[in-house]
Amino acid sequence: MSHLAVGVDVGGTRIKAGLVDPDGRVVVEAARDTPGRTAPPDVVEDAIVSVVEELRAEAGPDQVVAVGVGAAGLVDHDRGAVVFAPHLSWREEPLRERLVSRLDLPVTVDNDANLAAWAEHRFGAGRGETHLVLVALGTGIGGAVLTDGRLQRGRHGLAGEFGHQRMVPGGRPCQCGHQGCWEQYCSGTVLRRLGQEIVRAGGPVAAALAERSGGDPERVRGEHVTGAALAGDPAATAALAEVGTRLGEGLADVVAALDPGTVVVGGGPIEAGELLLVPARAALARELIGGRHRPAPRVVAAALGPLAGLVGAADLARSTLGGGRG
Amino acid sequence: MSHLAVGVDVGGTRIKAGLVDPDGRVVVEAARDTPGRTAPPDVVEDAIVSVVEELRAEAGPDQVVAVGVGAAGLVDHDRGAVVFAPHLSWREEPLRERLVSRLDLPVTVDNDANLAAWAEHRFGAGRGETHLVLVALGTGIGGAVLTDGRLQRGRHGLAGEFGHQRMVPGGRPCQCGHQGCWEQYCSGTVLRRLGQEIVRAGGPVAAALAERSGGDPERVRGEHVTGAALAGDPAATAALAEVGTRLGEGLADVVAALDPGTVVVGGGPIEAGELLLVPARAALARELIGGRHRPAPRVVAAALGPLAGLVGAADLARSTLGGGRG
Repeated sequence: MSHLAVGVDVGGTRIKAGLVDPDGRVVVEAARDTPGRTAPPDVVEDAIVSVVEELRAEAGPDQVVAVGVGAAGLVDHDRGAVVFAPHLSWREEPLRERLVSRLDLPVTVDNDANLAAWAEHRFGAGRGETHLVLVALGTGIGGAVLTDGRLQRGRHGLAGEFGHQRMVPGGRPCQCGHQGCWEQYCSGTVLRRLGQEIVRAGGPVAAALAERSGGDPERVRGEHVTGAALAGDPAATAALAEVGTRLGEGLADVVAALDPGTVVVGGGPIEAGELLLVPARAALARELIGGRHRPAPRVVAAALGPLAGLVGAADLARSTLGGGRG
Repeated sequence: MSHLAVGVDVGGTRIKAGLVDPDGRVVVEAARDTPGRTAPPDVVEDAIVSVVEELRAEAGPDQVVAVGVGAAGLVDHDRGAVVFAPHLSWREEPLRERLVSRLDLPVTVDNDANLAAWAEHRFGAGRGETHLVLVALGTGIGGAVLTDGRLQRGRHGLAGEFGHQRMVPGGRPCQCGHQGCWEQYCSGTVLRRLGQEIVRAGGPVAAALAERSGGDPERVRGEHVTGAALAGDPAATAALAEVGTRLGEGLADVVAALDPGTVVVGGGPIEAGELLLVPARAALARELIGGRHRPAPRVVAAALGPLAGLVGAADLARSTLGGGRG
């Protein structure tokens, strides 16, 4: 019997999928555009089924044993249902049930950050770590918790929602309806905004970023900032230090509550590596309760990059087959 | 074979102990004064051994099968060592090892909040709950996390330290060295301070509390405030509402991270029951991410009172004997 599984990561703009072997290697990749926010749920399902069938045909008859699907949003893992997905029309969508009936394969459905954490634990920066926290800096902050080697989903499947910790009372407004949430000060979006502000300010300090973005503040992207910082630009480096400092400050509360051995940081800004992590570790050391009386967790960069979610989805789907538990 | 166990709760002023049966009932109680902060570790040990031997004699020969000890502070459960206890001279104290050699019985050592959470899970307000968070409002905030029916101690035994979440940047100074920690706005100490401020303010608004405390602000205690509030005093009720609101605000971050099914609230202020919990639930509902799109946890009063710690200590020590895991 083969041990290939298909992992699918349903993002806001792309549905990425891959045929994944038991060592976490992505053997074949495939993708579809994500149908727009107003598309009915079955159109999204059609796209998932289509990309899975493509990979299944690629693998050959009976080679795929399971399918794992990850999505940003509130996912009830036990029911295999997407309760709420911010960038899709899914509301209480019984995704697993529908996919099982169309694919005739075992299917698991989970939150994308959970799956990235699982992948990093199995094959990446968290190998051998029993107590792991993952934070992914994207549009907001995605979070996941693994203790004793198992994903912690909470009572209703909603654990790991770190991004809306209140960092600044009365601070920046957040889509969630509150103010001053952590992710308003620490995310890929924030890094981009800081880059835009630099270009808008103009002058010599903005030169490196202006060159990368064609001089238009609106066109500055996060990777321009990480790129400029890695090339030594002081303004971009300062922007990463700001995001990193906020990362460490927010992690202090997460670490106090959960006491992980390793914190894995993913998302666009981590491309800057130590330029993000050094200020993050300094802020964590400064803010963490018990400071000198306690061991601090390792804070490290995610190792698997943007494919972590689909690798985790595939691996967890396969391990669930064997009666294992993520 | 008997199934009695001894539970010991080493507090700042008293060492409380009890003979506990398998249904969580405290059959016999005993206590000692806690030796002062400057007393050497073996004097504290002597007191623990003495109170255990007293209860053992009471139970009769071979009736006690295990001893569980709880202490406020950083406890490494696996090693049975107290890493740091704020009100004792213990630093890296190998308590379990020492007690085993003196008592010749199986001994477990744990954080007091963990043990209270275990007791509430087994016999109290959290019966049947697989995902429980406990917050105990005392000098500060004690915290514990139970998921899938097991205590979560974290990678280094330090999980559940919620009290130092930053609630107000640049806010009230905390013993921990930071400013604006949650427990500076929500604890038994805070309730007492608010009561003192009311008496100090004087006038008709202070009458009920002044009567209970003899008119001296320094003599106001937390139970004066809860008592006056339960008797209908508006100023005391407002003080409880303030602590309750801060409780709910801080819980929003804890619940977002952990997604518990039940939050159990213990400590002195909970004597006021719904006067504390109604404002806490309102603030939690207002601040919790995902508000209307998600189920909220139950927020309930602890049921076992000040004996919860020793009941949990005894029960966990006994269940560990059978190969069970807390």
